[in-house]
Amino acid sequence: MEPATATAAAAPPVPALKDELDIVIPTIRNLDFLEMWRPFFQPYHLIIVQDGDPSKIIKVPEGFDYELYNRNDINKILGPKASCISFKDSACRCFGYMVSKKKYVFTIDDDCFVAKDPAGKPINALEQHIKNLLSPSTPFFFNTLYDPFRDGADFVRGYPFSLREGVPTAVSHGLWLNIPDYDAPTQLVKPLERNTRFVDAVLTIPRGTLFPMCGMNLAFDRELIGPAMYFGLMGDGQPIGRYDDMWAGWCTKVICDHLGLGVKTGLPYIFHSKASNPFVNLRKEYKGIFWQEEIIPFFQQAVLPKDCTTVQKCYIELAKQVKEKLSKVDPYFDKLADAMVTWIEAWDELNPPEAAVPNGKAK
Amino acid sequence: MEPATATAAAAPPVPALKDELDIVIPTIRNLDFLEMWRPFFQPYHLIIVQDGDPSKIIKVPEGFDYELYNRNDINKILGPKASCISFKDSACRCFGYMVSKKKYVFTIDDDCFVAKDPAGKPINALEQHIKNLLSPSTPFFFNTLYDPFRDGADFVRGYPFSLREGVPTAVSHGLWLNIPDYDAPTQLVKPLERNTRFVDAVLTIPRGTLFPMCGMNLAFDRELIGPAMYFGLMGDGQPIGRYDDMWAGWCTKVICDHLGLGVKTGLPYIFHSKASNPFVNLRKEYKGIFWQEEIIPFFQQAVLPKDCTTVQKCYIELAKQVKEKLSKVDPYFDKLADAMVTWIEAWDELNPPEAAVPNGKAK
Repeated sequence: MEPATATAAAAPPVPALKDELDIVIPTIRNLDFLEMWRPFFQPYHLIIVQDGDPSKIIKVPEGFDYELYNRNDINKILGPKASCISFKDSACRCFGYMVSKKKYVFTIDDDCFVAKDPAGKPINALEQHIKNLLSPSTPFFFNTLYDPFRDGADFVRGYPFSLREGVPTAVSHGLWLNIPDYDAPTQLVKPLERNTRFVDAVLTIPRGTLFPMCGMNLAFDRELIGPAMYFGLMGDGQPIGRYDDMWAGWCTKVICDHLGLGVKTGLPYIFHSKASNPFVNLRKEYKGIFWQEEIIPFFQQAVLPKDCTTVQKCYIELAKQVKEKLSKVDPYFDKLADAMVTWIEAWDELNPPEAAVPNGKAK
Repeated sequence: MEPATATAAAAPPVPALKDELDIVIPTIRNLDFLEMWRPFFQPYHLIIVQDGDPSKIIKVPEGFDYELYNRNDINKILGPKASCISFKDSACRCFGYMVSKKKYVFTIDDDCFVAKDPAGKPINALEQHIKNLLSPSTPFFFNTLYDPFRDGADFVRGYPFSLREGVPTAVSHGLWLNIPDYDAPTQLVKPLERNTRFVDAVLTIPRGTLFPMCGMNLAFDRELIGPAMYFGLMGDGQPIGRYDDMWAGWCTKVICDHLGLGVKTGLPYIFHSKASNPFVNLRKEYKGIFWQEEIIPFFQQAVLPKDCTTVQKCYIELAKQVKEKLSKVDPYFDKLADAMVTWIEAWDELNPPEAAVPNGKAK
């Protein structure tokens, strides 16, 4: 019989946030990709949001702890409010954010595999996201050696000491090796381009700066920013696709800036296995390519009043401004603004305020 | 006799901007460090600004094309306006920017050596700075794959097409392996910390975001931004040191943002050989550590009027605002504001406007 101490030493360490983080995966197919992630994901709970035909059976590899929702489940749980959840588009993943009861969410696409670092070591993407989320962000001043909270780094000369405490990190945006996240025109022009550059950095996106948030490899603090992570109306019956994560990113960044929360980007990388069809993408995207020219100035100029002290209040205010200022671009935005309000109503129904931990600076 | 074609093929390629760039080096010692840089710097013209005792002879390795200015030269050339050039401080380097007649300047400290990339290859820092300066910047929206103009990179999905042209790059800020550029308190707390992380990225510092600009490894477009690169009053007779480059960086960034010019940071790395004495540094810095807490909000809030259409006009306006708003912090800023005006007068004297190529959006 082995001595107890040896047994204890041999036991694998409990991974960080094991009981405080859900992994949300939107899918239409069997989740074989999880085999590759098993050493990193198996300790965590999965929330699988099945898109498309609800009668199809999605196979999940053995040994994973999960709950799965198809369209029938979504309709049953949300009733008429299910209208705010997209169908036949990976935007449906945000339903998983809503039903999670955990403080943190990591979401990943099912065509994303484990990447390797330059030394050939498999990258535990989730572990890096957790590091990003658990260390502060520095949105008010740029640090030229990147994230000052990483090992071997710090604030450089000239960085004001009063800003070195940082602010809580609400979002960790990871990147992709192999197939870069390009729009359809760029895919068409550069069909063979692959991202092979491993940039060993994490950095805070400065206050007042918007960025294109990709939903492929993304983690966030649900309690701090969850209600802003609405992926909009895309896919079936909608005039647009592939702007779900972008929409969430613009709203989230404006609200993070208003509430004094941080957004980090950079590490971790995942390996993005195959490019989606650029012709299909062009059809989904082309209205967005026009619209974003007006949407981005709208978000750059958006100001939230001081009494917006919770993410929900900020989001309802943003919905109002979308209706006022973007409906003239296309009637779609009128519908989207209504869906934004429905989303918050549904969120609060599933996450009753009395049970919720307050967000950032919530009263 | 070799055939002409073979000779042509064997001739080393002419390096970029050979006749359009000066290398400015402030020093108090023999320039042995140039030996290591010979393959990269020898084709270029050097401007050496000798600090301290003008009777000392500075030895420059053979084969370099240079001009050298000591304090007597500075006094002779500028007359009473020489008061704006610091003495016994590397801030004196900005005199070199003023006497240069080239479009571009690269400045480097004499304790900076050639760094190696992760593959062990010596890094031609100047070549990378030139790449940075000759490709546009993207200050209005963040690109998550960093500089979209590098090989193998591009703008990601969701990046507005109207912003993909970018803006002219005015500044390229390079980094340091080995000894990081820390302030005295951090040096004291982490005496053994070395920067070993090679981050393979160049990125634009977003509009509206300030950064700590280090003068150790820095290149800029003199025609676009030169008159803003004043390194202030430091060293002999002044209450502060080690804020020369920081001051230049804050002024430069505010003016670049106003004129629609870009600032990049990241690659190239140099190898910074030895840490300066943290006790000496603390004496030089300690007032700055207090003052920067008021200076940075001042620069974050500074607004330049629309009729400031040249760097000179912007800089004179900033000097006025410094006098108005920072003199209450310390009388030093009153003197500094005057020196800022003197600097511009001296700049225009040595670079008569009729001879000058207009800056950015100059009328």
